[in-house]
Amino acid sequence: MAMKNVWKEAVSEAVGTALLLATVIGSGIMGERLAGGNVAVALLANSLATGAGLAALILAFGPISGAHFNPAVSLCDALMGGLAWSKVPVYVLAQVLGAFLGVAAANLMFNLPAFFASQHARTGPSQWFSECVATFGLLSIIWGTSRGRSSAVPFAVAAYITAAYWFTASTSFANPAVTLARSASDTFAGIRLQDAPGFILAQLIGAFAATALFRWLLPGLPRSAADVIVPHDGVNNP
Amino acid sequence: MAMKNVWKEAVSEAVGTALLLATVIGSGIMGERLAGGNVAVALLANSLATGAGLAALILAFGPISGAHFNPAVSLCDALMGGLAWSKVPVYVLAQVLGAFLGVAAANLMFNLPAFFASQHARTGPSQWFSECVATFGLLSIIWGTSRGRSSAVPFAVAAYITAAYWFTASTSFANPAVTLARSASDTFAGIRLQDAPGFILAQLIGAFAATALFRWLLPGLPRSAADVIVPHDGVNNP
Amino acid sequence: MAMKNVWKEAVSEAVGTALLLATVIGSGIMGERLAGGNVAVALLANSLATGAGLAALILAFGPISGAHFNPAVSLCDALMGGLAWSKVPVYVLAQVLGAFLGVAAANLMFNLPAFFASQHARTGPSQWFSECVATFGLLSIIWGTSRGRSSAVPFAVAAYITAAYWFTASTSFANPAVTLARSASDTFAGIRLQDAPGFILAQLIGAFAATALFRWLLPGLPRSAADVIVPHDGVNNP
Amino acid sequence: MAMKNVWKEAVSEAVGTALLLATVIGSGIMGERLAGGNVAVALLANSLATGAGLAALILAFGPISGAHFNPAVSLCDALMGGLAWSKVPVYVLAQVLGAFLGVAAANLMFNLPAFFASQHARTGPSQWFSECVATFGLLSIIWGTSRGRSSAVPFAVAAYITAAYWFTASTSFANPAVTLARSASDTFAGIRLQDAPGFILAQLIGAFAATALFRWLLPGLPRSAADVIVPHDGVNNP
Repeated sequence: MAMKNVWKEAVSEAVGTALLLATVIGSGIMGERLAGGNVAVALLANSLATGAGLAALILAFGPISGAHFNPAVSLCDALMGGLAWSKVPVYVLAQVLGAFLGVAAANLMFNLPAFFASQHARTGPSQWFSECVATFGLLSIIWGTSRGRSSAVPFAVAAYITAAYWFTASTSFANPAVTLARSASDTFAGIRLQDAPGFILAQLIGAFAATALFRWLLPGLPRSAADVIVPHDGVNNP
Repeated sequence: MAMKNVWKEAVSEAVGTALLLATVIGSGIMGERLAGGNVAVALLANSLATGAGLAALILAFGPISGAHFNPAVSLCDALMGGLAWSKVPVYVLAQVLGAFLGVAAANLMFNLPAFFASQHARTGPSQWFSECVATFGLLSIIWGTSRGRSSAVPFAVAAYITAAYWFTASTSFANPAVTLARSASDTFAGIRLQDAPGFILAQLIGAFAATALFRWLLPGLPRSAADVIVPHDGVNNP
Repeated sequence: MAMKNVWKEAVSEAVGTALLLATVIGSGIMGERLAGGNVAVALLANSLATGAGLAALILAFGPISGAHFNPAVSLCDALMGGLAWSKVPVYVLAQVLGAFLGVAAANLMFNLPAFFASQHARTGPSQWFSECVATFGLLSIIWGTSRGRSSAVPFAVAAYITAAYWFTASTSFANPAVTLARSASDTFAGIRLQDAPGFILAQLIGAFAATALFRWLLPGLPRSAADVIVPHDGVNNP
Repeated sequence: MAMKNVWKEAVSEAVGTALLLATVIGSGIMGERLAGGNVAVALLANSLATGAGLAALILAFGPISGAHFNPAVSLCDALMGGLAWSKVPVYVLAQVLGAFLGVAAANLMFNLPAFFASQHARTGPSQWFSECVATFGLLSIIWGTSRGRSSAVPFAVAAYITAAYWFTASTSFANPAVTLARSASDTFAGIRLQDAPGFILAQLIGAFAATALFRWLLPGLPRSAADVIVPHDGVNNP
């Protein structure tokens, strides 16, 4: 694949991740502002908006770059033999830059500073265990669905994330780029920067465990790993 | 394509847009009346009803006229080489007329005057930036999804709009015809007429930016632009 | 088609309509009991449960009998040349019996009398206009979607009904059998028996109008009318 | 099918059921903690999270083991000639073990003891009738959808369960393994252990009734029973 296609893939990952973060942060702000103190109503809005937005974004950007939007996914996909290792830093960098861009967009839309450090403490064993379970589940959904029903992957991932907001004590960040960027917004969906490393470590452990499990469950998986999350040919065949 | 098919396309755009506006305005009224002051609950109803209704309407009217329901979409589709320029005024006029018809239907269903000017102020840079981001996202979803997964477009657009109600400070009008018509209902989803031009300008900027981006990302897009949002053959092949 | 298949179609319509009514009535009771006086929250539960249940029921019973569950649909399908006129009374009778059976099931599940007359007044021009619009929209969705994308019909109909709960002042009964049966439960979703005829008349007007419109929009529709709502071959080819 | 594939099927059923129970219990805890006493809002979160999570899990684990996650489904599938009787105890044991594992995971994520007996009384005729109707409906959806539209089964089952939380007085457990495991968490979704047998008996009666009905409605069903809930070939063909 030519270098110019790598550029397009990087832009796709960056713009997609930016819109994802704008959705996560923006809907958190809107939900909290309107919910009159009922946190469950705010989280309903936040989780439904995130799930719906994620489905749309995976459908739109998936055919270009796979729509990983998540360094843990790109890393596991490389481990499974899908994404070329030389592309991993490109994907991860694009995801992190896009994530911060999206946070800034959300903050500005709601008349807040582009970046301002979150004071939201999220730490301790049950939070870390939550992130580990959340990311284990996410990668299980991706690997299990990608083999036979790739057209259902956008819906499966989106539905899973909507559910995971609710069944984990951490509201399921499940994404290192998202975790870092959410430290730059002191709003509903934020996290203190010093709590990010614990989350990211737990996420990677969960992601690797699911990848190992599905490699055993489905020995043929590496053959379809290049098509994760969504089959994509870069931009060659329109 | 014969003139009589243009008539049918125009009627399809008008009736579809009318039902869309009835959904937007009507569910806003119902949500606000029943929510007992909790605006987040009202917006949950409004956003879920709009998303669900939009999916159904695109599925039903898409095969006839493409189900644009949106002058920004028709304009960008013409720019991309899809919709014939001679049809653009027909589509836009049908969408605007349909939108006002739908507002009247909603108002009358809830025992209000057919038209009464909204006093809902929606203006300022963060509102305009919100509309720009919202419409940039909408056109990104449309262009990204229409290439490879056209059967998923109705769901992608509906899911995106549901999310965009929440992640933008303006609740994401993202549609010039909808913006104009919402000025004629002084209810939950309304907007003051004098605030409409700012919204419409911001929407067009966002729409053109996304169209330019995807033309670069997917050079082959113009070949499938005639099928936006939903592949449609007018009414020739039943 | 042999007589024994007509029996199976009738049982399919009856059981499907019974489960639909159990969903409508039961989720209305549960929503109202738990919502602590916030009617919007109760209607959210009621509308989401109805839409989700309806999608599942159309998917399951559609391949047997088409999953009309609605005399207005069966009647319009006969007008369009789909359902044989000789089957119309069988379908309608099965739908009405099933609807009352479902109401009884819901009432009994919630420890109420099997049947008890609703005192919920729903009458007047804006209610009738609401039912007319609601059923016009429902038949538009059915006819528009059934031509090209029949596999999407269950989702389109379910999404539309979820939206129509909110955008009509009557919460969109849009179904004569449902209207009659809802008079037999004095709970959230009920309607006074004396108000039923006005609703049913308005529903039929809306249904016929949409059928006429789509016959003009899509002249080829009668050829696919036999497959409404879901392509079904009775039970011949498993 | 080789013994090692049975192991993989068992692990698939166990991990999938564990994630399902983590979703049911975890989202119940989170919903109740955040809802500020509005039980309808808590149940909205609980039911939407369960439905969304279930769709994702069936899509991911279905291609490996069918994604029964439910002894009533495995038993009825054996009765219909699908699952080999020799595998029934393996499936049921894996489901029960997985269910308890998932309850422990949810409890630990929310800083509670891994297991602690529920005090939530759920008993009496209307509760039992509710479970009977709920499971009758579930098996109807599975049998009706699995014949012609197997790719829609994950969505049909998930949508049905979301609805059934609301239209039954028992919030629709509809699953013996889930019922047993929910006795080990004294939280929102719990049930007293002594109430479990009544629920399980009612569930089996409903499941068998639906299986008998659909065997009559669709005589060809046994031919597709081996593909319930999702067509799966174990792990042979990647």
